[in-house]
Amino acid sequence: MPCSIAQTLDIIGEFWTLLILRDLFLGNRRFSRLEANLGISKKVLSDRLKTLLAAEIIQQKSTKQSGGWLEYHLTEKGEALGPVLLALMAWGDHWVFNDKVPIQIIHKNCNHPTKPGENCSHCGEPINFNSVSGIPSAGMNKKEAAQWKSFRESIDK
Amino acid sequence: MPCSIAQTLDIIGEFWTLLILRDLFLGNRRFSRLEANLGISKKVLSDRLKTLLAAEIIQQKSTKQSGGWLEYHLTEKGEALGPVLLALMAWGDHWVFNDKVPIQIIHKNCNHPTKPGENCSHCGEPINFNSVSGIPSAGMNKKEAAQWKSFRESIDK
Repeated sequence: MPCSIAQTLDIIGEFWTLLILRDLFLGNRRFSRLEANLGISKKVLSDRLKTLLAAEIIQQKSTKQSGGWLEYHLTEKGEALGPVLLALMAWGDHWVFNDKVPIQIIHKNCNHPTKPGENCSHCGEPINFNSVSGIPSAGMNKKEAAQWKSFRESIDK
Repeated sequence: MPCSIAQTLDIIGEFWTLLILRDLFLGNRRFSRLEANLGISKKVLSDRLKTLLAAEIIQQKSTKQSGGWLEYHLTEKGEALGPVLLALMAWGDHWVFNDKVPIQIIHKNCNHPTKPGENCSHCGEPINFNSVSGIPSAGMNKKEAAQWKSFRESIDK
């Protein structure tokens, strides 16, 4: 029986795949950096990236900005998965972290904190993973916040 | 590093678990019926249900309405996962089925078709899996629509 949920999970319903997508949304786009940040084996990472490439959720690019490094970028189809990740984040923020969230997201347009969701909880505009930034919050200790900062800096290089 | 997405996936980020939750949202709550509808092995189903019970996402109930059968019901924490499934459905409807959706959801309150999302696309009220019903649509052939009907009838017994 055709089902949009089942067939979506066929493509992306797997622990590592969703974490790879999370990292791509955050801008962590190179094989070696994905491997390092996710602590994933080369084989599993390579398999998952192949599946995502075949499904046209990501594409390979080598840009001037990346200094010639091969990077994995989300396509429009991939960026459309942002709401799934934001819905997962919202659930975890509340039900795993009891609203003492590890990462507070900020809507870049209005520069106010927002809950993860379809719309900014401050200004009401639609948001996606790309239109928000994240800052370490109450759910992270100092060491974890420092790790996050160094992860962010490694991406921006 | 604590992450609401990663820790949510630790609990629910796995193909079968999300399909089990889909069936529970649809009201398919008994072990044998979950096994039959999902085509899942007894062992995997039993393992996943144990994980969901331990995480307090579901609870076991034997009610008068169920004729004394042991059923699995979503808790408040479990029902809060509705937006994740609706976000998966929305993506699949568009990117897998090209908007020729297999199931059209109807907002029970206003009785109008809506896209899967946080709010009804007709009346704007918040929706969850529980406040919508689904009817076979353009993405299902006659045989599939008949299967869906008989599945729905088996649940309602």
